[in-house]
Amino acid sequence: MIKVGLDMMGGDFAPLEAVKGAALFLKENTNAVHLILIGDEEKIKAQPDFSQLPQGSYSIVHAPELIAMHEHPTKALKEKQQSSIAIGFHLLATGKADAFISAGNTGAMMVGALFSIKAIEGVLRPTIGAYMPRENGKLGLLVDVGLNADCKPENLNQFAVLGSLYAEHILKIENPKVGLVNLGEEEGKGNLLAQATYPLLKENTHIHFAGNIEGRDILMDKADVMVCEGFTGNVVLKMAESIYDITQRRNIKDEHFDRFNFEMYGGVPVLGVAKPVIIGHGISHATAFKNMINIACRMNETDLTGKIKSCFSNNVSNE
Amino acid sequence: MIKVGLDMMGGDFAPLEAVKGAALFLKENTNAVHLILIGDEEKIKAQPDFSQLPQGSYSIVHAPELIAMHEHPTKALKEKQQSSIAIGFHLLATGKADAFISAGNTGAMMVGALFSIKAIEGVLRPTIGAYMPRENGKLGLLVDVGLNADCKPENLNQFAVLGSLYAEHILKIENPKVGLVNLGEEEGKGNLLAQATYPLLKENTHIHFAGNIEGRDILMDKADVMVCEGFTGNVVLKMAESIYDITQRRNIKDEHFDRFNFEMYGGVPVLGVAKPVIIGHGISHATAFKNMINIACRMNETDLTGKIKSCFSNNVSNE
Repeated sequence: MIKVGLDMMGGDFAPLEAVKGAALFLKENTNAVHLILIGDEEKIKAQPDFSQLPQGSYSIVHAPELIAMHEHPTKALKEKQQSSIAIGFHLLATGKADAFISAGNTGAMMVGALFSIKAIEGVLRPTIGAYMPRENGKLGLLVDVGLNADCKPENLNQFAVLGSLYAEHILKIENPKVGLVNLGEEEGKGNLLAQATYPLLKENTHIHFAGNIEGRDILMDKADVMVCEGFTGNVVLKMAESIYDITQRRNIKDEHFDRFNFEMYGGVPVLGVAKPVIIGHGISHATAFKNMINIACRMNETDLTGKIKSCFSNNVSNE
Repeated sequence: MIKVGLDMMGGDFAPLEAVKGAALFLKENTNAVHLILIGDEEKIKAQPDFSQLPQGSYSIVHAPELIAMHEHPTKALKEKQQSSIAIGFHLLATGKADAFISAGNTGAMMVGALFSIKAIEGVLRPTIGAYMPRENGKLGLLVDVGLNADCKPENLNQFAVLGSLYAEHILKIENPKVGLVNLGEEEGKGNLLAQATYPLLKENTHIHFAGNIEGRDILMDKADVMVCEGFTGNVVLKMAESIYDITQRRNIKDEHFDRFNFEMYGGVPVLGVAKPVIIGHGISHATAFKNMINIACRMNETDLTGKIKSCFSNNVSNE
């Protein structure tokens, strides 16, 4: 029985959409999954879709406090021990939950993931990625998208491994191709970071390195896992998100551009921490919550964290 | 009389499209402009549109050699003194041309701009920008887009001034807003470079600083001049270019997305060098060549280079 902790108070439409998402997930899912709904019990129970939740498939853990979207992460986590995010991490750290999902304060989620769950041994810096839609309907993974604004070559080398394991086991891409985001295709191109990262990726036996990829390749399928520092990755992600906004405003109906609605993907996990933590988009709706629960389950089923652990115990960090 | 040197051999469709572009420009233009067509005389004269060029409005400078698109820039420029690019820079350096335009080997153009023309005194690093289309039909300027992959805060601070002067005088945007490309809106966000650049921009009296802008703002009109190092800028530019490719493949007809056809803009000048140098897109067609000649003329008419000189003589570099 997988126990998934879900922050019901996180995101712009909480707890309404979180309850809807939980109901949607449980409806479609006959698996042995138990949801731990963390939040204001009264408010959770007051949601119209609450009655849709099958008895016995969930429990509620009351959290009387709330960390708002723009509170200072470290301060809020420390001071609000009874907030849904603090309680979620407590449940995860003590083994009462197998995964924790929240669309709440991103900073607090990152701080919680890094300090109450901690990095897997050998992982220098955990990372967070984002999906990039391809015209063939598949997804690529861009990593990092903001957790690590300044990186060293060995960080990018590890992101490549973390992203590859995620792509292989969660996105089910066999032998995923890793591309280094760069300003030119040829080896030797790039800023100092990219130039120093290239040889590390080339010699890394844990990945299938496909060379440099350029900005024009990010939305194509030249690489399944696209590696860069979190500054560029964050700018790229938010620009990709804005493309969807433009198509909506201009009334463009297109199957592919619809996939730029990043909201529907929910979120991707923090990769490299010792237990599954998924940080959702603030504007997550029901489908996003459902998708995040699915990812949490798949991470548990495939034991992604264990696979990362065993890979990094073989000294990936020194390659 | 403005004398504009035009490399007829640069770009994927040379000299055909360069001749077409020159004809297009001269047809629409009654200004006192003289074009210096640099390239293989026989080939230039063999183009179908050559007969469209009004007598007296142009001269041909024969260049028997050619620097191919993928030749090593420094080596090619040194060894091929009779190439159209080398001759173009010679004409510019000796005052026989007032501006030089080429859609040829980008690296050779950059090397020529930096070493045969040189930076304006006080400019630490010249830069190259790219237009970003807005839904209101206007253009923003993203700077740098690849000339400077690694930057210091004072470089970005200078790019902001160079971009502002360009936006004001060439794009005719009054009091252009400058945004710092960053991963968050709030002051204090960013990688080390962005964090250190913010206070410099804030205190810079030569610009109208509008704060941080995020990836989602790059295609909006939150800032007229968007400043970043050339690595992120290059990835962003090429990703924006790829959006147009996607809309074309998917048969999407939209006035705004049509403006993502970067080819039509031709190119933007190298900002901060002592004379107007414009580097065009390799796939430049006639309209692009016409547009580049227009920009070269406007740069001369407004004396952009002189304005940059006088601004930097007031110690912009130390702000």
